[in-house]
Amino acid sequence: MLHRERVIPPEYIYPVDPWRLVEKEFYAAAIPTAESIFAVSNGYLGMRGNFEEDEPCHESGVYINGFHETWPIVYGESAHGFAKVGQTMIGVPDAKVIRLYVDDEPFYLPTAELKSFERALDMKRGCLTRELLWETPAGKLVRIRSKRMVSFTHRHLAVMHYEVTILNAEAPVVIASHAVNRKDEQTGDVDPRKARGFKERALVPDYFKDEGERLFLGFRTQNSGMSLGLGVDHQVETECAYDVASKHGQEDGQVVYSIAAKPGKPFSLTKFAAYHTSRRSRAGELCERAGRILARVKKIGHKPLFADQEAYMVDFWRRSDVRIETAQGVAQKSTEELQQAIRFNLFHLGQATGRAEGAGIPAKGLTGRTYEGHYFWDTEIYMLPFLLYTAPRIARNLLEFRYSMLDAARRRAREVNQKGALFPWRTISGEEASAYYAAGTAQYHINADIAYAVKKYVDVTGDRRFLWEKGAEILVETARLWDDLGFYSTAKGGKFCLNAVTGPDEYNAVVDNNAYTNLMARENLRYAAETVRRMRDEAPDWYAVLVDRTGLDHFEPAAWERAVEMMYIPRDEERGILLQDDDFLNKEPWDFAGTPLEDYPLLLNYHPLVIYRHQVIKQADVVLAQFLLNDLFTLEEKTRNFEFYDPLTTGDSSLSTGIQSIMALETGDLEKGVEYGRYAMLMDLADVGGNVSDGCHIASMGACWMVLAYGLAGMRDRNGMISFHPVRLHGMEKLSFPLRIRGCELFVEIDGCTVVYTLRSGEELTIRHEEQVVRLTAQEPAMELPLTGHESCGLAD
Amino acid sequence: MLHRERVIPPEYIYPVDPWRLVEKEFYAAAIPTAESIFAVSNGYLGMRGNFEEDEPCHESGVYINGFHETWPIVYGESAHGFAKVGQTMIGVPDAKVIRLYVDDEPFYLPTAELKSFERALDMKRGCLTRELLWETPAGKLVRIRSKRMVSFTHRHLAVMHYEVTILNAEAPVVIASHAVNRKDEQTGDVDPRKARGFKERALVPDYFKDEGERLFLGFRTQNSGMSLGLGVDHQVETECAYDVASKHGQEDGQVVYSIAAKPGKPFSLTKFAAYHTSRRSRAGELCERAGRILARVKKIGHKPLFADQEAYMVDFWRRSDVRIETAQGVAQKSTEELQQAIRFNLFHLGQATGRAEGAGIPAKGLTGRTYEGHYFWDTEIYMLPFLLYTAPRIARNLLEFRYSMLDAARRRAREVNQKGALFPWRTISGEEASAYYAAGTAQYHINADIAYAVKKYVDVTGDRRFLWEKGAEILVETARLWDDLGFYSTAKGGKFCLNAVTGPDEYNAVVDNNAYTNLMARENLRYAAETVRRMRDEAPDWYAVLVDRTGLDHFEPAAWERAVEMMYIPRDEERGILLQDDDFLNKEPWDFAGTPLEDYPLLLNYHPLVIYRHQVIKQADVVLAQFLLNDLFTLEEKTRNFEFYDPLTTGDSSLSTGIQSIMALETGDLEKGVEYGRYAMLMDLADVGGNVSDGCHIASMGACWMVLAYGLAGMRDRNGMISFHPVRLHGMEKLSFPLRIRGCELFVEIDGCTVVYTLRSGEELTIRHEEQVVRLTAQEPAMELPLTGHESCGLAD
Repeated sequence: MLHRERVIPPEYIYPVDPWRLVEKEFYAAAIPTAESIFAVSNGYLGMRGNFEEDEPCHESGVYINGFHETWPIVYGESAHGFAKVGQTMIGVPDAKVIRLYVDDEPFYLPTAELKSFERALDMKRGCLTRELLWETPAGKLVRIRSKRMVSFTHRHLAVMHYEVTILNAEAPVVIASHAVNRKDEQTGDVDPRKARGFKERALVPDYFKDEGERLFLGFRTQNSGMSLGLGVDHQVETECAYDVASKHGQEDGQVVYSIAAKPGKPFSLTKFAAYHTSRRSRAGELCERAGRILARVKKIGHKPLFADQEAYMVDFWRRSDVRIETAQGVAQKSTEELQQAIRFNLFHLGQATGRAEGAGIPAKGLTGRTYEGHYFWDTEIYMLPFLLYTAPRIARNLLEFRYSMLDAARRRAREVNQKGALFPWRTISGEEASAYYAAGTAQYHINADIAYAVKKYVDVTGDRRFLWEKGAEILVETARLWDDLGFYSTAKGGKFCLNAVTGPDEYNAVVDNNAYTNLMARENLRYAAETVRRMRDEAPDWYAVLVDRTGLDHFEPAAWERAVEMMYIPRDEERGILLQDDDFLNKEPWDFAGTPLEDYPLLLNYHPLVIYRHQVIKQADVVLAQFLLNDLFTLEEKTRNFEFYDPLTTGDSSLSTGIQSIMALETGDLEKGVEYGRYAMLMDLADVGGNVSDGCHIASMGACWMVLAYGLAGMRDRNGMISFHPVRLHGMEKLSFPLRIRGCELFVEIDGCTVVYTLRSGEELTIRHEEQVVRLTAQEPAMELPLTGHESCGLAD
Repeated sequence: MLHRERVIPPEYIYPVDPWRLVEKEFYAAAIPTAESIFAVSNGYLGMRGNFEEDEPCHESGVYINGFHETWPIVYGESAHGFAKVGQTMIGVPDAKVIRLYVDDEPFYLPTAELKSFERALDMKRGCLTRELLWETPAGKLVRIRSKRMVSFTHRHLAVMHYEVTILNAEAPVVIASHAVNRKDEQTGDVDPRKARGFKERALVPDYFKDEGERLFLGFRTQNSGMSLGLGVDHQVETECAYDVASKHGQEDGQVVYSIAAKPGKPFSLTKFAAYHTSRRSRAGELCERAGRILARVKKIGHKPLFADQEAYMVDFWRRSDVRIETAQGVAQKSTEELQQAIRFNLFHLGQATGRAEGAGIPAKGLTGRTYEGHYFWDTEIYMLPFLLYTAPRIARNLLEFRYSMLDAARRRAREVNQKGALFPWRTISGEEASAYYAAGTAQYHINADIAYAVKKYVDVTGDRRFLWEKGAEILVETARLWDDLGFYSTAKGGKFCLNAVTGPDEYNAVVDNNAYTNLMARENLRYAAETVRRMRDEAPDWYAVLVDRTGLDHFEPAAWERAVEMMYIPRDEERGILLQDDDFLNKEPWDFAGTPLEDYPLLLNYHPLVIYRHQVIKQADVVLAQFLLNDLFTLEEKTRNFEFYDPLTTGDSSLSTGIQSIMALETGDLEKGVEYGRYAMLMDLADVGGNVSDGCHIASMGACWMVLAYGLAGMRDRNGMISFHPVRLHGMEKLSFPLRIRGCELFVEIDGCTVVYTLRSGEELTIRHEEQVVRLTAQEPAMELPLTGHESCGLAD
């Protein structure tokens, strides 16, 4: 059940375009959301979709993944083992500001007379463009064309192109290009999800070098010991005469072009900004690195750089694009709208992850600071599937990043009196940063989520070396935690129980035997034992390394297997359902009928105790477990559970609807499945959560891909066997997408009656279609098969 | 089971004295604890037992009950309804400092050559005395006699008397009398129970007046809007010649006496300090009030003031003293040791409560700042019984103070989405100040504790007027909360359940159907309904006022009665016990054998989640409920429950052992009962919790009286019928104590074979002795009755 309304933006401002997100008017009301939606990023560096002129703006922001300040977490009342070090991704100096003056009149969007305006996120080319025509009070027509990109090929680089042409007159034109270190602003504490501000400035100037049009600013953080170097350079192309002046300081600088503009003669400015960050190097050295990048890319020039970006995107879409098409006769527009939404989600997923090497994926990517730029379980459960099947190298990077935090997770386990390793619920540095353990440390399930992702990665890519080298160590330490955390309960007939944990659903906190947690922990323990035994036989050298690194005792796998065998899975026999936790049915039903829409999300309007004592769910929990471990349940079981839990689920978390959609589709409630799927796909574009201004919901974007692949195409991939059980699409709609599986490229095309599977590269791939095993080879690469399932309602309704 | 060791202080330093707490040497190691133990207070004003010279000291402190600073509670992650305003009792300017210089040598205890030393808390006279003989490096013998008291008759007044005599020589002597506003010091956050410090000063100078030997200092708090005025004055008696000089500033002052001391001629200085505080008046006006007190008491002089204090104490002991005596042949000393401990507890109880009018009783009284000077349920459940039976007017004051916070409690209920009123778990101002809801807001039981205290007060005093005028309103609003909080659970056969609450035992937090809470809430609901119905019949005018004040609907009492009837009380039929909560038996047993002594209290060494998931108890919970509602359970039930829960109880809270003692005695485990009782009585003197330096455990002192009256004398008082079922005391020990019941004075004397009940004043009183009804009248005031119970082991072992 969804307690949300979609806010469909007016179409005359946002006309549908399958490859671009277009804004046809300056639309002040949309500024906050547009800043998130029009953000450009490569996963390392991100820039919110602020206007070039910087004003008007809701929140101006440039972020670098993992670049954070720390602060001591203060508790009104503290307790043993509470997380101590807060971590907050902070805004870095902003190099995207370019201000324009014509006849000494500043160009300011809200008051400017605009003859035309178009801003577009060009998802095909990977950049943000704007073109407008401004009539000055003096009647001069000024054409402004600008483009902004954060380069995928040059990880540290942003390129801005700004072209001004006075069409009908001469005029003195001034273009001021800025780089500015904003003081981080204090944010309110009304919404606990938002990021913290710092009273004192987080960034301290540490280096400065002025070379006229080229400027270097170096900073270090006050507490976290990180450094940042920013280099900015400029390149002009014009036939107009102009002067340059620059004025730089410790914290900001501007390069000012004073131009004698001639009618019809463009003045074109390219601005290069290179950011480098480090935990070790000093700001001066980072500025030198930035300087080397600037020298290199200035030689290349803006056009080839934008062309490189487009080439990257061509490859991205080749690997990732999910197409939805309509046969003739069905309204084209609604399909295009859906296509646009799908691409928008995939594009931002690509932006959030593309060059995130050595870091995780913040909950909002680099489109906003909400959730403090922290990494959660979202990465492994919601983002990884897309990456696994379209960019396995990036998926591997993310798992290697988790592996790099294993020592911190070992320490954290000790802090909370446990053996093994406990990954932090939210973190940047690897230290636990959750200051509310009931929806933080208690979510031990993150251990199992990571182990699940390791298995899935290995299954889908076949990358056994990663498993031997790093994955196994994660498995051993996470399994140890479970074994230590649980106990064999006399009250539960000697079963292995996990008490006082919080599952994915944060509206039921610190519960006993959360079904999700127990099921996933069992899988973790099982896979750990299996892996260790297999290594001993198949990779004894790696096994020796593992024993050396973990002190693994040969009795341990047996203990884990015993826990697997005896794991308690709470069930209600009468209803034939899994119990979300031991006490879920003992709670008071929530009065949904008596809860006004404005009381959602409940967490902002009810004390946690009120929420916890009611039968109300924030996000899919049992239902998620039945998706992730789908082979362990019959369709009938899944259906009963979905039907029981779905009406109790508020979807107050953006992580929910995608999973609800997939399971509705699997259990045959196609209408609901499609409806939820639409919500997932439009989470940000229609501002379903009402908080897109704070940043895009990257995990929900991952879930959008999952709705397409796992939901509509009915893909399942447990234990490496990829199977499909597609929904029959209504009205001759057609869905197609590529998948990379163990080095092969598979292309799947589904329409109302059939599926075509094509092996685009690779020697051989065996999959399953409905109940049938399908073997594709380089010789016989394609196969068309009929669909037998129920027909869905239209996707693009 | 107690995981504690008693620290018995060396007897050659602390010789036993039944009426005094004596320290015979300067003993540096004991300074921190002695500061708490030797504190003097009247419940309004308190001074820690710092030496006159102020140094050496552990924590110098003068406190005024309820005088506090506020601060915004900062949460790492906040949520709806979290308490917002922190409150901290702050140290007020210290007027107790008097420094001495002989031959310009400062008198400094650690280095002084002491020929004799005695410091004593004189419990008979209500003051702290010190007498010592100092041989200066020049061989001069200096006798210093000092006394300090906080007056019970003059609530705002402290009197210090300081007499110096050079016995064997002439010498220039300087006495500097100080008043100083110390900057509040930052305290560490290692122990969550400790008080917060303020980085900025909490007290801002607001008024200042210098009149030579008389000085006024006025302050206001930075945030809480409170003001304080301090007046200090001096009086000298001597035959020696002397000069006076004074030096005063905005925040401190000193009056310096330069004396030409003659051998054998005392110089005697009396220092009067008057403190006034207010939320409304300005500091200047408060200083004027202080001036009027000073003028009055200076006329009286120190001797009559100390005599007044002694007279107050005579009355106090007449009302309160519990005597324990030994027949000949039994070692006298151990009895005296016990007698001293009992008096020490009662004395501090008297100090904490005597003049607390208009305020509550902080957890540590005014002996330390730990727990921020907050008021908890301790007052109603642990301190009130002693007050009810010895000083019913003070008991009434405390309940009226709770009543004055009812509006804040109504607001608090709204903040946490409930109807009625929810009293704050910890507070000074009436606002909830608990920043950890799991062991704070979730302890809804404080509502029922207060209702219980109202009933007990009315039952024991017969003060029906209080019930009509104020008590009923508390009952209505607390009952409403319960009715709203609970629900009729299908899963529990339609029973009324209270979920997500924390009982007294904070090692099992946010549980469903905590037996204590459900039992006490039922009593609350029942008494509220009964009271309302009775008022309608018996006091219709007051009933009309009640309806007007609460909007009481006549359907409400019926709803409460239904909840009473249907209240779910969790039980384990197999073991024949109440369940502490629904899931208590599902938890993992705690590994007591594997837990080293230094890991106690567990809360300082284990993450809350670890504690919560184990079968381990901080303090009596079910056992406490069976004591408070003792008529609802058979002896057999109580025995089974005690035997089950006691081994799981760590006693990590000082509130626990007293109750464990009482119930061990009732259920026939006399040895355990006596052992626990000793722990309760020696909680502070033997530093059982290891933290007496932070302040005395006032609630445990109340529990000490309860061990004597409810435990050893087997008193029970449900519904106003006072009954006794005394333990037969071993070895001809004798226990006697007075009780005030509905205006009558009853004296109870118990020895190994019989009890004598004497009606000391009042017309008639019916009590019960064992199974026998005993009617005492003015005509036949005394009755001696035989004892039939088991004989205990020796109390004073």
